[in-house]
Amino acid sequence: MHTTVQSLIRQFSIKRISNAHSERVLDSVATEEPLEIRVSYWFKDSQMSQSVAVTMRTPGNDRELAAGLLLSEGVIRDGHQITAIRSLGSEPSNEVLVELSKEVDFEIWRLSRSSFVNSSCGICGKRSRDAVAPQSSFPRDDHLSIDASLIQALPALLRERQEGFAKTGGLHAAALIDSSGRIDALFEDIGRHNALDKLIGSYVLNGRIPLRDHFFFLSSRSSFELIQKTAMAGVPMIATVGGPSSLAIETARQLGITLVGFVRSDRFNVYSGQWRINS
Amino acid sequence: MHTTVQSLIRQFSIKRISNAHSERVLDSVATEEPLEIRVSYWFKDSQMSQSVAVTMRTPGNDRELAAGLLLSEGVIRDGHQITAIRSLGSEPSNEVLVELSKEVDFEIWRLSRSSFVNSSCGICGKRSRDAVAPQSSFPRDDHLSIDASLIQALPALLRERQEGFAKTGGLHAAALIDSSGRIDALFEDIGRHNALDKLIGSYVLNGRIPLRDHFFFLSSRSSFELIQKTAMAGVPMIATVGGPSSLAIETARQLGITLVGFVRSDRFNVYSGQWRINS
Repeated sequence: MHTTVQSLIRQFSIKRISNAHSERVLDSVATEEPLEIRVSYWFKDSQMSQSVAVTMRTPGNDRELAAGLLLSEGVIRDGHQITAIRSLGSEPSNEVLVELSKEVDFEIWRLSRSSFVNSSCGICGKRSRDAVAPQSSFPRDDHLSIDASLIQALPALLRERQEGFAKTGGLHAAALIDSSGRIDALFEDIGRHNALDKLIGSYVLNGRIPLRDHFFFLSSRSSFELIQKTAMAGVPMIATVGGPSSLAIETARQLGITLVGFVRSDRFNVYSGQWRINS
Repeated sequence: MHTTVQSLIRQFSIKRISNAHSERVLDSVATEEPLEIRVSYWFKDSQMSQSVAVTMRTPGNDRELAAGLLLSEGVIRDGHQITAIRSLGSEPSNEVLVELSKEVDFEIWRLSRSSFVNSSCGICGKRSRDAVAPQSSFPRDDHLSIDASLIQALPALLRERQEGFAKTGGLHAAALIDSSGRIDALFEDIGRHNALDKLIGSYVLNGRIPLRDHFFFLSSRSSFELIQKTAMAGVPMIATVGGPSSLAIETARQLGITLVGFVRSDRFNVYSGQWRINS
């Protein structure tokens, strides 16, 4: 019944920098992959099929995830309204099909939803692993070059400026850092995606995008979507207090974006684009 | 340019339990409210209007959030493609309208997206603060009664079983706890909403929903959406290692769900439904 540790984790060769010392190590990273959840349902004696969600998830227990989501979203009331669930496509599959019983009026549920795209998810409306590839290819003509000591100073700098977090413990911060290590701007939000969108948006409105000589620093973990936002803003590097997902690393490497994680006052990890880091 | 601390935080009167001692205190909580982002755009010399996203965000800098999201999602390439941004409705507003210039081909962008609902967001397709009210009213006929000492034992219990987190630092866990404090089931995922959906789904497939004599324990913060999922699963209580959002507290109080946060080995906070806690 439980997810296996194998599907939860992937191994990556990364660079670990600790003060003056630097070494290449094998690191375990949480797996992130998109899952498309489809339903087949009955409408006027015909069986129809419809996508209801794409979620960035850790593979494993996809049938449970689909069933739980359909209950949470009010599509079904209990398990008897599901006649079958199966993974589609080749293993490892990123698509699951849920067959609903005839008593489920899916059309009514569907009509109560608009065709909204949800902002917390950069991949809504895209279907497969291929389709979640970022929309922009990233030009590598920047000259960003950051000292290791400057990165290690960031957590203390961020804490000083995170007014909301200190009071609640529940807010993420996203900051734009210039090449000398100064915070150019900082935004807080309950959602890490929102915090980064607010930061990027402030420069969109100032007409200062792309930001080729700056980088992002976030209090959160990094995910595929945060790398996608970084690429769309033309920013060559992102560093975070938390760790990255597997798809964040793969996407950053593919795009040539520098990805740094687990930043502490005396160490950090470089997952991609280490040529921009001087250690 | 920066979000004010006022909009970031709300005050709630809560119960703080620390070993044998219990007191009522005023607590600062991160604000969570839905924001609907609409665009007006040109199509064949007519100006059209369309919702593109509803995001659960912390109020403040909504114009920046909208501009950043439209860039991240590939709707616009730079700030010149925005002719105006304004908040709609009364203050505090939960709706922002972005006017796109004639050069933006929004119809093409829209057609490249399907009418997906995103799973990480329980409110997609719903429009306003009123519309995010949970779909189910919650019956208060349970007899769940939990000792404070049992709650304080949960973090150690969860850590023992979180295989993926220990290796990566990047996975959330959601567990179902019975009234004697045992873990009935536990699922890990990179997303806290997915972890809870997997847990709920496993009981949907077993035919064991609603779970009136159990409660949820999560390694994450709590949000509106996690309370909504708890309600839909018929579970009367949720406890988390992190803190709740304002809308999580308001929704839990409205539904009569017990909401516990910041659980440590010697203390925790009760935000709602304290009659189920014996301290």
